[in-house]
Amino acid sequence: MLRQLREQVLEANLEVVRRGLVLYTFGNVSGISREDGLVVIKPSGVPYERMRADDLVVTDLDGKTVWGELRPSSDLATHLHLYRSFPQIGGIVHTHSEHATAWAQAGRPIPALGTTHADYFYGPVPVTRELTAEEIGGDYVHATGVAIVETFGNRDPMEVPAALVAGHAPFCWGKTPDDAVHNAVVLEAVARMAMYTLSLEPNAKGVSQALLDRHYFRKHGSTATYGQSNK
Amino acid sequence: MLRQLREQVLEANLEVVRRGLVLYTFGNVSGISREDGLVVIKPSGVPYERMRADDLVVTDLDGKTVWGELRPSSDLATHLHLYRSFPQIGGIVHTHSEHATAWAQAGRPIPALGTTHADYFYGPVPVTRELTAEEIGGDYVHATGVAIVETFGNRDPMEVPAALVAGHAPFCWGKTPDDAVHNAVVLEAVARMAMYTLSLEPNAKGVSQALLDRHYFRKHGSTATYGQSNK
Amino acid sequence: MLRQLREQVLEANLEVVRRGLVLYTFGNVSGISREDGLVVIKPSGVPYERMRADDLVVTDLDGKTVWGELRPSSDLATHLHLYRSFPQIGGIVHTHSEHATAWAQAGRPIPALGTTHADYFYGPVPVTRELTAEEIGGDYVHATGVAIVETFGNRDPMEVPAALVAGHAPFCWGKTPDDAVHNAVVLEAVARMAMYTLSLEPNAKGVSQALLDRHYFRKHGSTATYGQSNK
Amino acid sequence: MLRQLREQVLEANLEVVRRGLVLYTFGNVSGISREDGLVVIKPSGVPYERMRADDLVVTDLDGKTVWGELRPSSDLATHLHLYRSFPQIGGIVHTHSEHATAWAQAGRPIPALGTTHADYFYGPVPVTRELTAEEIGGDYVHATGVAIVETFGNRDPMEVPAALVAGHAPFCWGKTPDDAVHNAVVLEAVARMAMYTLSLEPNAKGVSQALLDRHYFRKHGSTATYGQSNK
Repeated sequence: MLRQLREQVLEANLEVVRRGLVLYTFGNVSGISREDGLVVIKPSGVPYERMRADDLVVTDLDGKTVWGELRPSSDLATHLHLYRSFPQIGGIVHTHSEHATAWAQAGRPIPALGTTHADYFYGPVPVTRELTAEEIGGDYVHATGVAIVETFGNRDPMEVPAALVAGHAPFCWGKTPDDAVHNAVVLEAVARMAMYTLSLEPNAKGVSQALLDRHYFRKHGSTATYGQSNK
Repeated sequence: MLRQLREQVLEANLEVVRRGLVLYTFGNVSGISREDGLVVIKPSGVPYERMRADDLVVTDLDGKTVWGELRPSSDLATHLHLYRSFPQIGGIVHTHSEHATAWAQAGRPIPALGTTHADYFYGPVPVTRELTAEEIGGDYVHATGVAIVETFGNRDPMEVPAALVAGHAPFCWGKTPDDAVHNAVVLEAVARMAMYTLSLEPNAKGVSQALLDRHYFRKHGSTATYGQSNK
Repeated sequence: MLRQLREQVLEANLEVVRRGLVLYTFGNVSGISREDGLVVIKPSGVPYERMRADDLVVTDLDGKTVWGELRPSSDLATHLHLYRSFPQIGGIVHTHSEHATAWAQAGRPIPALGTTHADYFYGPVPVTRELTAEEIGGDYVHATGVAIVETFGNRDPMEVPAALVAGHAPFCWGKTPDDAVHNAVVLEAVARMAMYTLSLEPNAKGVSQALLDRHYFRKHGSTATYGQSNK
Repeated sequence: MLRQLREQVLEANLEVVRRGLVLYTFGNVSGISREDGLVVIKPSGVPYERMRADDLVVTDLDGKTVWGELRPSSDLATHLHLYRSFPQIGGIVHTHSEHATAWAQAGRPIPALGTTHADYFYGPVPVTRELTAEEIGGDYVHATGVAIVETFGNRDPMEVPAALVAGHAPFCWGKTPDDAVHNAVVLEAVARMAMYTLSLEPNAKGVSQALLDRHYFRKHGSTATYGQSNK
């Protein structure tokens, strides 16, 4: 079932390892077939070295496993809530990549300090509110998704395809699993450069609205000029 | 003698190198056969590149070599005191991994600033008191073990399977030598992220008790839900 | 057309990747044939792994493509303005290398804090003024070049073969594309060491004029004594 | 001439590259035959990738080339002054390794903050005074050696086998070229950990005299207990 998507999600999971964003079995990538209303996700706690496409798990949007023999990632319910709430997205990545995680642990959004940021994220990368003790003691993984969605309000989540969960770590997304991984890699670079920048200039004021617009819309939307035109 | 354990301890020593936690011959891993009351430990000052299972040394819990031709690690007495005092543990790792060592040199416990920490360490990673001049001039290596044990009091050392020796470096442990290495790798990542976090937010307050509980018990104890169930 | 220069520019682009200065398709290197008044530049958004010399684009100094089928780098107009304004230079590199970019984001020139800096850059590496909203909304890429050139005034741009564009990232240059890459690699190392130095000593005062002269002229100009004499 | 020493010095130069302590042709290693009063040193500006033992240069202690066709390292005069002044040493390494260089640029000695430091350096790694404009404008390279030697006074240079030249970078030494490289690698690690430590605790007070003695003499001198006994 959904063999091609399982191959894509496997490859995206392995790419996260190759890019140095995860240790051991930390992190997970999923993808969705909107047509089928089904999600493919990494199994829980299986070493990346021996993960095969057949180890991935297919669930419906309520989290019921419809294919696969392993238990899905323990973060499944967060992924599902994001897929239900953000119909634009096709893939999700969760990592504990070290610099993005540091911003999450600091409880601070990553400000847009330069054009690298602006090329990918149309404004600060937000940090969620802290979860309440009730949420943590209850359906914690689902509540994590709720907190992320709350943070975006009515905003298009594709404008800033990432959020930091306070005290935890980042979630990133994209049009596809591969695109989500690309955003996770850039997020970590942007997080690192923002940390360096503040160490040099604690009051760095960041890019102007004009520069943010220019760079973001150079790569996104109908007026994009970056790359080769799609013939 | 204890060939299988020697192979495991050798492999654990080599893994510490592959993970970038040691320079040259720094660091050492040991394992214990509780049944036999015997410890297998790395020899002193032998380059990792040419270490073989036959170079490892087997000692009893009083430090008497019962097998092997080389001199055991100069940190043997610390390992032995930990094995005698912490009957739950099956393997010990000592490294000078750079970020954990920085916390030890700063004389500061590593606070639980996020869920990565909480997944492995149920609270701050403690730092020992400084040793006295008498201890340092006397049975120093043994005294290092004593200071670590003192730090834990009546607490279960498996809840926080690591300690920082003030002015020195970390010791980590686990159910097996391999598990101890896993904890040492995560400790270094956690130490690094905590340093980054404080550089962004010197007053970061860390995870709530609810979040600490949730993450720690998700991976540990009878209610763990992470990974595949052991069928 | 200009096959040899295209090979050199390709190789210089790949070297930038090998040296860890770029992520994905970030960054670009160009070279100029002064004799022909033609510039060879990386195409826009093509992955480095499959870039071939035939993918490179040849343009005249007004930006008109005279050879090649792909769209040139979106930063072309900056390169062209630098080539027109700095007749001494033969190659240009633009990267988002992380430490140099942090200085650009902080809006601070990189001070000459030691001899490594002085061996390559005869004084601080300058940062441009910020572009105006009009410039950003107008011919932004060209305006970036204008701001760099303004920063140098009547100064010889070969004395400090690099500039930081405020809120953006570095541009470096040299006698050849290869030489420009060499300068970009050193700039990143110098930026990193300067950041470390200020973290240790915020008031580090940097090299004296005598030391700056000694090191810079040891490697540059008619009195250079470094390396093997050109027989 | 001195083929074996040239092979050793070549290997030591290459090890410095493998350990990540140098960029391009930065850095140099030399060795001395005390019996012959001759020094073998890296040639100036030759890429490490194609350096062969026949490219190394043999000079006497006055700097006269007695064998070899290339120009010796531009830092030769510093090496020679150290060999003349420190009869205990057999090899010298100069690098611009990034963290040790940051301390040199900050003009601060590296304090003995932990046992890793104490295992190799019996006290702070000193920084020289700044050179005067006269020294810099005159026999600068020789004056660099003079400043290093001054810093040690009557102290045994083998107790702290390294010095930071203010505003420049470290020089390290040892019994052999290989031993000097080992010290340079450890110096960089110690410099990095000291920087991390001070970022966590600006007032870190460092190891006690008792701990410094214990660790240093565990590895050095007639009472050393580390490693395998030399049978």
